[in-house]
Amino acid sequence: MQLSIPDDQYFMQQALVQARMAFEADEVPVGAVVVLQNRIIARGHNQVEQLTDATAHAEMLAITSAFHALGAKYLPDATLYVTLEPCLMCCGALFWGKIGRVVFGASDPKNGFKSKTAPHWPLHPKTELVGGVLEAECAALMTAFFRNKR
Amino acid sequence: MQLSIPDDQYFMQQALVQARMAFEADEVPVGAVVVLQNRIIARGHNQVEQLTDATAHAEMLAITSAFHALGAKYLPDATLYVTLEPCLMCCGALFWGKIGRVVFGASDPKNGFKSKTAPHWPLHPKTELVGGVLEAECAALMTAFFRNKR
Repeated sequence: MQLSIPDDQYFMQQALVQARMAFEADEVPVGAVVVLQNRIIARGHNQVEQLTDATAHAEMLAITSAFHALGAKYLPDATLYVTLEPCLMCCGALFWGKIGRVVFGASDPKNGFKSKTAPHWPLHPKTELVGGVLEAECAALMTAFFRNKR
Repeated sequence: MQLSIPDDQYFMQQALVQARMAFEADEVPVGAVVVLQNRIIARGHNQVEQLTDATAHAEMLAITSAFHALGAKYLPDATLYVTLEPCLMCCGALFWGKIGRVVFGASDPKNGFKSKTAPHWPLHPKTELVGGVLEAECAALMTAFFRNKR
């Protein structure tokens, strides 16, 4: 038996597991995991409706859980995987948490940070950003959700 | 005995009470209250160190508390008073919460949203914004805190 090293696609699959939990709960299907040294230390999925809290985005819940898991308020060595391009609020949270790396799946032209900010970007200058990992799967889940809503 | 109607200065004083609680706890002294129909429905002060959570800004704690208090995820009739100009994360939270009005005290040229965003502004289009209420008192508390740190 051969062990493969988990990669960005593997962890995005885990974020998709979270996103599907949101979908099943009739929440906008966004999921996130926080990874440190190839281990998932925190998970979150959108719970805005369940918690009646407009700030309960997947990233916010995952990053707060990661702070608690580590007892640390900065996460410079961690990577956050999220199925959708983060919004400004979540970018702000990732900025304050000094997260090392952000990997997202689908783009969000309506509410993603890229459409909202000037060239100077809202994440921490040391944060590495990767987009488009498993983009099709992440986007398909969103499309299916909003199709059901119509 | 004459009852006076509470005004912006009155509620900013209440936010300052929260900010002083943060100061006493050796936190960056920012405080916030959420007001609905002239009544305070939620309060918060910066607890980043105490909670070891970089997202635990006064506004985040106050707005989440307000969602819980009302059992509502939107706050179109509420006003948030905060002693310092909100950062992008907090503006994002106030955007998602569709808060009716934001009143802040001191400006924050380093991390406030005004220095970070393009002309299109990060709050909800229907959100009214007022700055500079009890600005001197709010700023003096910040100055005193950072003077102690040096």
